[in-house]
Amino acid sequence: MGEENYTKGKQSIQFAQAPYIMSSASVVGKKEGEGPLGSKFDVVGEDDLFGADTWEEAESTMQKEACLLAMGKSHINQNQVRYLFGGDLLRQGIATSIGVESLEIPVFGLFGACSTSGEALALAAMSVAAGYGDSMMAVTSSHFASAEKEFRFPLSYANQRPLSAQWTVTGSGAFLVGKKRSHVRIAGITIGKIVDYGLKDSQNMGACMAPAACDTILCNLQDFNRSPDDYDRIVTGDLGYVGQSILFDLALGKEYDIRKNHMDCGMTIFDQESQDTHAGGSGCGCAATTLSAYILPKIERGEWKRVLFVPTGALMSTVSFNEGASVPGIAHAIILEHC
Amino acid sequence: MGEENYTKGKQSIQFAQAPYIMSSASVVGKKEGEGPLGSKFDVVGEDDLFGADTWEEAESTMQKEACLLAMGKSHINQNQVRYLFGGDLLRQGIATSIGVESLEIPVFGLFGACSTSGEALALAAMSVAAGYGDSMMAVTSSHFASAEKEFRFPLSYANQRPLSAQWTVTGSGAFLVGKKRSHVRIAGITIGKIVDYGLKDSQNMGACMAPAACDTILCNLQDFNRSPDDYDRIVTGDLGYVGQSILFDLALGKEYDIRKNHMDCGMTIFDQESQDTHAGGSGCGCAATTLSAYILPKIERGEWKRVLFVPTGALMSTVSFNEGASVPGIAHAIILEHC
Repeated sequence: MGEENYTKGKQSIQFAQAPYIMSSASVVGKKEGEGPLGSKFDVVGEDDLFGADTWEEAESTMQKEACLLAMGKSHINQNQVRYLFGGDLLRQGIATSIGVESLEIPVFGLFGACSTSGEALALAAMSVAAGYGDSMMAVTSSHFASAEKEFRFPLSYANQRPLSAQWTVTGSGAFLVGKKRSHVRIAGITIGKIVDYGLKDSQNMGACMAPAACDTILCNLQDFNRSPDDYDRIVTGDLGYVGQSILFDLALGKEYDIRKNHMDCGMTIFDQESQDTHAGGSGCGCAATTLSAYILPKIERGEWKRVLFVPTGALMSTVSFNEGASVPGIAHAIILEHC
Repeated sequence: MGEENYTKGKQSIQFAQAPYIMSSASVVGKKEGEGPLGSKFDVVGEDDLFGADTWEEAESTMQKEACLLAMGKSHINQNQVRYLFGGDLLRQGIATSIGVESLEIPVFGLFGACSTSGEALALAAMSVAAGYGDSMMAVTSSHFASAEKEFRFPLSYANQRPLSAQWTVTGSGAFLVGKKRSHVRIAGITIGKIVDYGLKDSQNMGACMAPAACDTILCNLQDFNRSPDDYDRIVTGDLGYVGQSILFDLALGKEYDIRKNHMDCGMTIFDQESQDTHAGGSGCGCAATTLSAYILPKIERGEWKRVLFVPTGALMSTVSFNEGASVPGIAHAIILEHC
């Protein structure tokens, strides 16, 4: 693109020619379709299997469908997408590997737990702004049933969930980032450090992720010399009700009050009371589908001029958890602007 | 950096101002220290636990030590490294998350199976060439014991290994990619597609990865309009003896003869007969430590002028394998030049 991009502070980049989110798509499960955002998703599955035989294949199918839909909306085909940045929560990122295989786009596999949609959007934007191609795909997914199997108990065991537990969103969001003008641009990014407060409760992910969310949000404000009011919304991925209150406390402790413009995708995608989702939604698909179905349209219409989108991840595995390791968090921030 | 980088063909990038590999480091286990490259590694552990209590923590320790050593060789500290690109083979990339946490460098977590060192070097080079920072870290690791636990059987079960099986390398390689001049530059990259020939034998990874290696190597030759002889070596990550013969056949079928300048890290790092490693070494640490300890010094000295480094990955999980899914492969190519 010729012009210089700018590194800002320790962790951020401001793009000289900001790449656009050319189009996006969301594919979700039945429960998500019954939630407050139900009518806004592109596809709502009938039975969460999406025609597949296993939960893992179902998740792969969602990723593939979301990518195809996003490409369809931009009227481009898979040969015109230069690189794909994708990931999910499953071991060895298998939902992505199987899901995007048939698209035959060169792939960068990612893992950032539930922060992966931020990581994918950041790398896609960095690649477009550097002139490495005109269109890049960023895609992530999660699936309630495959995640319960991966991290917790078999569904048929019907274990009781503590109130701090979150409900993994069944969904995939795909985003085409590129040079073709749209009404949403990625103006900058802040890449997160791993932040570990020593918490070990895998059923309280919000608490594990809140310190990382706080660290990245405050770093973004400092790197860009902004106050919380410079953003119409500061949107975290899936802190949920427990994580949100910790985030507020941590930020206030550093003399930043983000309470009046904070929103959390995990608290937005489900109705806590009627849907019995305890502390809120979570998963790689939570922030991605909420961004595609709810946040981007508001920025496109100009209702929100500037949003800080901050997907948050809890970095754990069943092995590390069983061995008594703590659950560190990570969060990446994407500056989205109406244009 | 101001100057335009060039996209080449469908999958490749040629850097206008090629980033340098400023320094690197290798940390390996006891068996690797007893192999043909033993004297060349920076650190050889005495008992593969590296002072930790679990195999996973041991792997994390190797990553951290490799990063610190690489930084030490360049006389820079962790605050001067802008972003870290890292990954490993374990579920949810836990070796990296725990390993690099204390470095407090903003992190992009990656998963590309044993191709991850290529993915990390590619993204580090892309970021430096785009002007996103002066120094980036690329690090990967694998550990024989944590990998057997993750993918196969508990070590104490002492199962018999088929001759096509490979031996996961215990090791971590870290690379500082940046603007500071050295004698090795990353001139370009070719990012791989996922290639699936439908193979389902998780004890024959070489066969699963060979089609992807062939696809990426041939794509590189075509994108840069080169013949195999334009490279002093075409180095695959861990195809092993079985995968190499398949790669040769596949390439010959497309009228490319790479036999006389091909080398495989998995066949180089162990002595097949005396070390009883069957089809050769494998793992995220195999290509990374061989690159750091053996390949880079040859390029630095000018013995090899131009090398195509092609780490190869088999994209599988125990879940996908048990559900009968095939094992697709992926490979990324890095063009390394003496300068």
